[in-house]
Amino acid sequence: MSEKEEFTEEVEELKDLETEAEEKAEAVSEIEKLTTERDQFEDQFLRARAEIANITNRNRNEREQLQKYRSQDLAKKLLSSIDNLERALQTEVQDEQGASLKKGVEMVLEGLLAALKEEGVEEIPAAKGDAYDPNVHHGVQIVPATEDLPADTIVEVFQKGYRLHDRVLRPSMVIVAQ
Amino acid sequence: MSEKEEFTEEVEELKDLETEAEEKAEAVSEIEKLTTERDQFEDQFLRARAEIANITNRNRNEREQLQKYRSQDLAKKLLSSIDNLERALQTEVQDEQGASLKKGVEMVLEGLLAALKEEGVEEIPAAKGDAYDPNVHHGVQIVPATEDLPADTIVEVFQKGYRLHDRVLRPSMVIVAQ
Repeated sequence: MSEKEEFTEEVEELKDLETEAEEKAEAVSEIEKLTTERDQFEDQFLRARAEIANITNRNRNEREQLQKYRSQDLAKKLLSSIDNLERALQTEVQDEQGASLKKGVEMVLEGLLAALKEEGVEEIPAAKGDAYDPNVHHGVQIVPATEDLPADTIVEVFQKGYRLHDRVLRPSMVIVAQ
Repeated sequence: MSEKEEFTEEVEELKDLETEAEEKAEAVSEIEKLTTERDQFEDQFLRARAEIANITNRNRNEREQLQKYRSQDLAKKLLSSIDNLERALQTEVQDEQGASLKKGVEMVLEGLLAALKEEGVEEIPAAKGDAYDPNVHHGVQIVPATEDLPADTIVEVFQKGYRLHDRVLRPSMVIVAQ
């Protein structure tokens, strides 16, 4: 091998070395880029999976609440019908037709209250002497407390109150001692 | 430089070249692995995102349906009360108390129908001479068709039917000509 040939060969080898080094640098940069991308997608995937769990739980709760309180609006609107039926039942009737009509009104009232009860609507307990609870009773008048009816007890119930499960549809309207 | 030195140098360079080649092969395999992982996470992320969109849409529809038909059960239970009130209103009253009671019943009936209407409940149209529609009318009896009441027309309505939006709560009970 001539000196020139040797030199040429050495230059070729060095060029190869340079190419390899360049390619290696490119590979390192590609690895860095891919690692970043992979980590980003993994992070986005994990966040999305967490969001799915959150959405699913939130929706289940919302559905349960909607189901539990679904009758709220209609039930609220029925309360005045119940008041009217109870008022009608106060009427003193004289003849058979009146008695038959009253019997019909009683049946309707029972039917309404039964339907409401099945949906979770119940009368709020309130009677003379009961403790006044501002969460479910609404004081419309205050009278001085006595020995029998001390402060914060119910003296009289003006209008029945109703609740749907734990929600007050309408508070009991009461006179309260103070 | 001696011949031995030259030789040694060349070997060193070739060793370097070999190391570079090995490192490059490792890098290529690392790039393949990372690309696969990145593509998998990207795919999982895109699927999760699509699932989020599906869940969100499905839940919105479910909520809308729950909201739209929320009064279905309570409304259904009220229909017999409405029948009873209408029956009570057929009673002939003789005196003032009876008239007052009847007035009360009328008010309750109006109140119930108004409350139901607000929730989307309406009477199913059905009258003598109307076309019989098996989707909303229930034939309880069949009578021969006449010139005035040809086949598939309603001859008489036994009991009113009601629907909640597009859902039949109770079909109209009718006599139909055939």
